[in-house]
Amino acid sequence: MCVRRCVITVGDLGEFGAVSRISGRLPQGATVLLGPGDDAAMVSAPDGRVVVSTDLLLEGRHFRRDWSSGYDVGRKAAAQNLADVAAMGAVPTSIVVGLGMPPDLPVEWLDALADGFREECAVVGASVVGGDIARSELVVIGVTALGDLGGRRPVTRSGARPGQVVAVAGRLGYAAAGLALLESGWAASEGMPLSRPQEALWEAVAAHRRPCPPYAAGPEAAELGAAAMLDVSDGLLQDLGHIAAASGVRVELDPAAFVVGEPVAAAAKELGADPLDWILGGGEDHALAAVFPAEVALPLSWRIVGDVVAGQGVVVRGRETGHAGWDHFA
Amino acid sequence: MCVRRCVITVGDLGEFGAVSRISGRLPQGATVLLGPGDDAAMVSAPDGRVVVSTDLLLEGRHFRRDWSSGYDVGRKAAAQNLADVAAMGAVPTSIVVGLGMPPDLPVEWLDALADGFREECAVVGASVVGGDIARSELVVIGVTALGDLGGRRPVTRSGARPGQVVAVAGRLGYAAAGLALLESGWAASEGMPLSRPQEALWEAVAAHRRPCPPYAAGPEAAELGAAAMLDVSDGLLQDLGHIAAASGVRVELDPAAFVVGEPVAAAAKELGADPLDWILGGGEDHALAAVFPAEVALPLSWRIVGDVVAGQGVVVRGRETGHAGWDHFA
Repeated sequence: MCVRRCVITVGDLGEFGAVSRISGRLPQGATVLLGPGDDAAMVSAPDGRVVVSTDLLLEGRHFRRDWSSGYDVGRKAAAQNLADVAAMGAVPTSIVVGLGMPPDLPVEWLDALADGFREECAVVGASVVGGDIARSELVVIGVTALGDLGGRRPVTRSGARPGQVVAVAGRLGYAAAGLALLESGWAASEGMPLSRPQEALWEAVAAHRRPCPPYAAGPEAAELGAAAMLDVSDGLLQDLGHIAAASGVRVELDPAAFVVGEPVAAAAKELGADPLDWILGGGEDHALAAVFPAEVALPLSWRIVGDVVAGQGVVVRGRETGHAGWDHFA
Repeated sequence: MCVRRCVITVGDLGEFGAVSRISGRLPQGATVLLGPGDDAAMVSAPDGRVVVSTDLLLEGRHFRRDWSSGYDVGRKAAAQNLADVAAMGAVPTSIVVGLGMPPDLPVEWLDALADGFREECAVVGASVVGGDIARSELVVIGVTALGDLGGRRPVTRSGARPGQVVAVAGRLGYAAAGLALLESGWAASEGMPLSRPQEALWEAVAAHRRPCPPYAAGPEAAELGAAAMLDVSDGLLQDLGHIAAASGVRVELDPAAFVVGEPVAAAAKELGADPLDWILGGGEDHALAAVFPAEVALPLSWRIVGDVVAGQGVVVRGRETGHAGWDHFA
């Protein structure tokens, strides 16, 4: 019995109550032939091939509930999987979500999480078609995304050749700058108009909470004839290292070619950091990095930042590069 | 440095070492167009539709490392998802696995887990096409399975009508009997020929560790014109309750129609239990339960255990049935 304030929890709903509550917040799009409520969902795969990617997000490791809302976590969890599908040149059609939750998790948090999943999927026209819930100590989220190539050749990591150019689409360094701000204890004053520099810092923090991957640039790159592509989730240097290794080439980056976004510059000034460290080493913005034949005329969504040459590894011209990037067990 | 005995751990391998070690144990079948090693895998979906199901397994909740080996856990985690796909009438083509692990997890356990996934997938001709690993306190496993319907209509939970019959394929009560034995502290003497009753008990425990779903019976039921189907994961009564609710019908079961397997009978005798409690209420064998038009001649793989009538809920004739089954938050 609650006298002053009732917080309804996941434990109050029970397993089937929670499933039905989540399902009620998730409309089903045109590619969904059978949505939640059965042993499995059924999704259209007009191409006759399906692209599939999975990721696991763990509370305390990939997100903190005091730093990110349920809505933020839902958007981020969906985004990082949808970006993997886009990075193959495919259009995401659907995701399924395995969700572990403590019984004392407020239902409000669960609702916000479901809304975050729904809204991020809506950006690309995908739907949450199914899932599974279980009880756990901390919040555990397993997301799997499916996508359709629409007849395009999938763009892998192994097609880069010397003489081609390296380009990126989307933001770099924003999420890393935001995380650094949060780790430094930075907090904007709530509910007041922010000064311009404060606003820029806030945008960096927001980018850590909700990445904004350039989804459309994935299929676009495939149409343009990209030779290799991936999404930047562990840091540009480390991720380009996968292309270099899989393709048997060397990647040389031009540090002057990168745009330092205002939020990244503002955070670097605030914390006395080098913005290029975040741009080259920060993950979680889920930018796309691709390699194109040099003769391809790239649209504005793509910016050339380097070259592919014979050799191995990734270097930044004029810069000493040590290890930069993320290893879950390092 | 280790002087007497070295246990190589997941932390020693690092994230990319672990990924590459797992991938090396996973051959790719004919339906796999692009296997592990990229942002996403690509699987054949000849039907133009893809069936997808996901499950989350948590150490301490769904399995215990002192009761099940890594190999057992891999087989079970794969089986429960493959069974979901089969329960739609589809043939599984592939799974992806999200894996959270503590750094001190022995690599031997990880190898065994990967082997378990591979072997269970091999039963149905599916492959492990991709995954994601992360660091966590306990072992966390998120599995997503894909399947192809080969032109068949998916069999949902909502098609049952009065006058039809209820049938089951596969084992019932085995895993629950095995779990009850483990919970009672029962242990067979290792490495000796077992007496016949001991052997039966051992088989029940083995069934808890590794379910043996009747995968082929799923597509078979779809071909035979099954009106509704699901896999029994939370207990027959509870799961048939989903068919009753989704179809707006009542299910009446005939308790005399169930076969009590020798392991179930032996465990019931050992523990002084009623075997029908396990058969009706136990989950995790991943039997299939389906509803067929009465005129369908069923093959030996299916056994009729009851009828569909007008009304609601599930009853066992001549038996008081309270709640039986599993709620993760109950």
